[in-house]
Amino acid sequence: MSYDILSTIKSPADLKSLSGEQIEKLCEEIREKLIDIVSVNGGHLSSNLGTVELTVALHRVFDCPYDSVVFDVGHQSYTHKMLTGRYDQIDTIRREGGLSGFPKRSESECDAFIAGHASTSISAALGIAKAKELIGDQSYTIAVIGDGSLTGGMAYEGMNNAGQHRKNFIIILNDNRMSISRNVGAMARYLSSIRMQPWYLRLKSGSERVLSKIPLFGRPISYVLRHSKAKVKHVMYRHTIFDKLGLSYYGPVDGHNMEELLNALNTVKRSKDPVLLHVVTKKGKGYKYAEDDSASYHGVGSFNIDTGEPISSKECFSDVFGKQLCSLAENDKSICAVTAAMRTGTGLLEFSKQFKDRFFDVGIAEEHAVTFSSGLALSGMLPVFAVYSTFLQRGYDQLIHDAAMQRAHLVLAIDRAGVVGEDGETHQGLFDVSMLNSIPSTTIFSPCYYDGLRNSLSAALYDTEGLVAVRYPRGGEGEKPADYTTEDLNYDIYGDKNADTLLITYGRLFSEAVKAREILKKQGKDVCILKLCRIKPIDPSAVEFAEGHKDIYFFEEGTRSGSVADAFRDMLDDKGYDGSYRVRAVDNIFVQHASVQNTLKKLGLDSGSMAEAIR
Amino acid sequence: MSYDILSTIKSPADLKSLSGEQIEKLCEEIREKLIDIVSVNGGHLSSNLGTVELTVALHRVFDCPYDSVVFDVGHQSYTHKMLTGRYDQIDTIRREGGLSGFPKRSESECDAFIAGHASTSISAALGIAKAKELIGDQSYTIAVIGDGSLTGGMAYEGMNNAGQHRKNFIIILNDNRMSISRNVGAMARYLSSIRMQPWYLRLKSGSERVLSKIPLFGRPISYVLRHSKAKVKHVMYRHTIFDKLGLSYYGPVDGHNMEELLNALNTVKRSKDPVLLHVVTKKGKGYKYAEDDSASYHGVGSFNIDTGEPISSKECFSDVFGKQLCSLAENDKSICAVTAAMRTGTGLLEFSKQFKDRFFDVGIAEEHAVTFSSGLALSGMLPVFAVYSTFLQRGYDQLIHDAAMQRAHLVLAIDRAGVVGEDGETHQGLFDVSMLNSIPSTTIFSPCYYDGLRNSLSAALYDTEGLVAVRYPRGGEGEKPADYTTEDLNYDIYGDKNADTLLITYGRLFSEAVKAREILKKQGKDVCILKLCRIKPIDPSAVEFAEGHKDIYFFEEGTRSGSVADAFRDMLDDKGYDGSYRVRAVDNIFVQHASVQNTLKKLGLDSGSMAEAIR
Repeated sequence: MSYDILSTIKSPADLKSLSGEQIEKLCEEIREKLIDIVSVNGGHLSSNLGTVELTVALHRVFDCPYDSVVFDVGHQSYTHKMLTGRYDQIDTIRREGGLSGFPKRSESECDAFIAGHASTSISAALGIAKAKELIGDQSYTIAVIGDGSLTGGMAYEGMNNAGQHRKNFIIILNDNRMSISRNVGAMARYLSSIRMQPWYLRLKSGSERVLSKIPLFGRPISYVLRHSKAKVKHVMYRHTIFDKLGLSYYGPVDGHNMEELLNALNTVKRSKDPVLLHVVTKKGKGYKYAEDDSASYHGVGSFNIDTGEPISSKECFSDVFGKQLCSLAENDKSICAVTAAMRTGTGLLEFSKQFKDRFFDVGIAEEHAVTFSSGLALSGMLPVFAVYSTFLQRGYDQLIHDAAMQRAHLVLAIDRAGVVGEDGETHQGLFDVSMLNSIPSTTIFSPCYYDGLRNSLSAALYDTEGLVAVRYPRGGEGEKPADYTTEDLNYDIYGDKNADTLLITYGRLFSEAVKAREILKKQGKDVCILKLCRIKPIDPSAVEFAEGHKDIYFFEEGTRSGSVADAFRDMLDDKGYDGSYRVRAVDNIFVQHASVQNTLKKLGLDSGSMAEAIR
Repeated sequence: MSYDILSTIKSPADLKSLSGEQIEKLCEEIREKLIDIVSVNGGHLSSNLGTVELTVALHRVFDCPYDSVVFDVGHQSYTHKMLTGRYDQIDTIRREGGLSGFPKRSESECDAFIAGHASTSISAALGIAKAKELIGDQSYTIAVIGDGSLTGGMAYEGMNNAGQHRKNFIIILNDNRMSISRNVGAMARYLSSIRMQPWYLRLKSGSERVLSKIPLFGRPISYVLRHSKAKVKHVMYRHTIFDKLGLSYYGPVDGHNMEELLNALNTVKRSKDPVLLHVVTKKGKGYKYAEDDSASYHGVGSFNIDTGEPISSKECFSDVFGKQLCSLAENDKSICAVTAAMRTGTGLLEFSKQFKDRFFDVGIAEEHAVTFSSGLALSGMLPVFAVYSTFLQRGYDQLIHDAAMQRAHLVLAIDRAGVVGEDGETHQGLFDVSMLNSIPSTTIFSPCYYDGLRNSLSAALYDTEGLVAVRYPRGGEGEKPADYTTEDLNYDIYGDKNADTLLITYGRLFSEAVKAREILKKQGKDVCILKLCRIKPIDPSAVEFAEGHKDIYFFEEGTRSGSVADAFRDMLDDKGYDGSYRVRAVDNIFVQHASVQNTLKKLGLDSGSMAEAIR
């Protein structure tokens, strides 16, 4: 397909002069382009396909960057990027040095706020809008938030404050009935009840005759809008939750009908009150495979456009975790699984089918997930909260206050721990170890291989008390050395114990360390490796072993402050260790998107860098 | 006053047989006792006075510990403690070795869940209830949550999940129109609209004639309840926000009218659906001074009962911060102040009056506060988010993701940093340094004296970029040595630079270090002190100075993992320092309630312990 119109859009201003037909053609081209780039680069497909018309309509009605649009989570921002001067670079999205897969202020002045984590947009937009009010800036501020993000409490904190804002503040609720999987909870059911109102069904029929009776989006209201300054009335509800929270509710409108969208946006633009516009969209719209299974196409690797099949598909840590948990849960009725809207991503799909009553998808609500799990734990259950490292940050206070402080036996299955690759800085799993290290009486396992994950999970459930985490990286396990058998749950020593130089590491980096050792061996230098699996508490005997080595190098795929390396160092200090101790960890930087391997290299944590550092 | 009835209550079961008159007398005795103990021990007065009848009614209708009552925040649990076998110990509340000022599972099996931070009760109760459901336990689970806590998003995450729960799950909304100060936001206005319904005003008039017409709490319904199993209908709304969220709403009822309360609780007890019962109470009820100014009596030190005057009142860090911010804001229109329902506690009362349009009380919503502030910052304002250290934990993810990652120039004024004393383990400010140390590109000032706070605040606003924190302890400044003038914003060296032994510390502990030095001097040992004010990033020249000392002792009033001591150690390692390095920090423990001074002593951080460690 050629991108005749899309390729001419250098800024949102170029949209204003397009005819209705051209706009329609533009949307088609955008869809083609989205499928094309995501099939090659991987990325977020379903959410972008669902918001093509909405994004085009937004840029037609508002003026970026004068007006500010804050996308919640931000994975739906590809169309926005293409329309705001970045079409030429869109093929580089999620690639090293290329565009980010999320909004980023440093990338464009049209990206009003960073995103990546859910439910932040209303708060951010409100901050921007308040500043504008104080400065006397009359431009609009618009938060675009999905119904999935409404399961996160922070969105309510934002809404609770939004009603006070006077004007030029618009919340667009992009309601696709989904988080990544089908959306859960009372709000989802409530939105569904709004959508099911008869008038909306009539509207969906598209009949001109019926539309013309509806006093907002059909002809009569557009007539009124064109020909008078009459005050526009809401279509139906004055009694939605949103109205009660001080927002003027408009909608719902069909998010794939450009005329409806433009009318609605022009209407809410005139409102003197803070507004919530309810737009109904379909995730994956326009690509059959994504429409049918939008969860699988939410975030994807590269795939074959014609068949929808992923280019490569192999077992990963999430799968192994899910299988192992199912196998344990078969024999133990107290095991529960909790996820914050990541049923598929965390490998819990099978568990959710097999153990329906013990599976809890709580929405994008990590705070609730931790405290809810603590409640389960203190009342006789064995909860496992499976969560991506980066999203666990949301539950820091609850981990301290509701889990650890009262010794609730809660197991965290921390997925995507460490560098995550193409999702980039907002999604790196580099803080969880530091975070958990600061919390008293926690235990952390960080296995390197699948068998280590399986054993750690059992140990976490049955041989450990209090708050305990098992963490593992995105993707699959690395190569296991031929002379290495099963991971010890505590630590392993690999190589010549009497070597002067000791390399300490844990998790995935062990594979890199083994290769580094081979490189050094060829160069005539012998190195011993101390591979930790339980990284908190560190076994004193591991420290004793380390003490016998003159030169110690600690490589850690995590934040330096609060690191295991520092904890190990402290224990060596207590013993009066007087050898040299060198640490390489992620020190005081945010890590940008690139492949995992390239990222490790940049951080000096791949085998080559390790060997070089030691040599 | 004698406590004739109260003193006979050994467990909630003892309440069941009391007559209406005795119950009334009991409530009076409880109020007297509350005023009595809080006037001596300090503590939370207003919230406890407001919930006397509610707590008595709860224990009359439900059976603790068989039924589980989860108090949100938990500062309103004094009555609960007295009624659940702890009357004999209530005089020890908040004192070292005595009862905690908050619910605590280790204290009583009637304390179903820990509390201290807001908005957790629904999540916790839901976890408990789900576990009961899985086990087949038929007992009730009740969350008691204030309207203030409804400003925290986590409460919505809980409610969003609560509608799914089948039965024996009750949320009691204790609506006193207040957080600590007057409650803010759309939900508060909404609750107010419910309370203002004409029927409720009629109900409040207490006329028998009117009551008897209302088919729930007056005679007719109690008659029905006694004489039939007729299904009880909701009084009024079927269309509250709570109903829409899948909860059956009942109320509002007068939380100081025992008959109404008992009827209402008995009614909701029979519900097959998850229920929200709206109870209207008055904070400070029964003590004139607290009724008139409940904010000041929310959390108090000891006071004179007759006059309401505090026993001692002197300037504290919060006051100094508030004054300094006002003084800066007079000359700089871009300065904004943000608080999460802590206007008074953080010293912002004057600011909120002087700069009304630049003051934002966002409710108990730290997540929102951080992201909102980032929005302000990125749009040209200079926001200062004033927050207690312990509550900042709620914003960890937002600090990383929304503030630091996009270099928003957000100033955190972290109050109650370090040991807080009588509030105990849920409120200790021991994690903020570790938390902020892990976040790239942050700056932290931790002054010891008022002038240091003033200068740090100016430096944070005008001479620093990105996320920057100024942290200071609860209470007032310590004694300043006669030969010490103004705090350097970076670091000070105090004592003989050539001493072999170097003591490093920061913040309030400098006062202890000075005394420790005197003790040691008397014993013939000379010690030099390196006092840091900017603790992140550490100035390399401070490390260079330290390097010249054979023995280094680092004392830190904060968590060991992620400590400044470890960061300093890392920098010494890089320089190949080969002297001895000893650290004392708060290592892997939760710290219980006691006076600040005694706590420091227990942690080995007071002058005596320092001297002993060095000797």
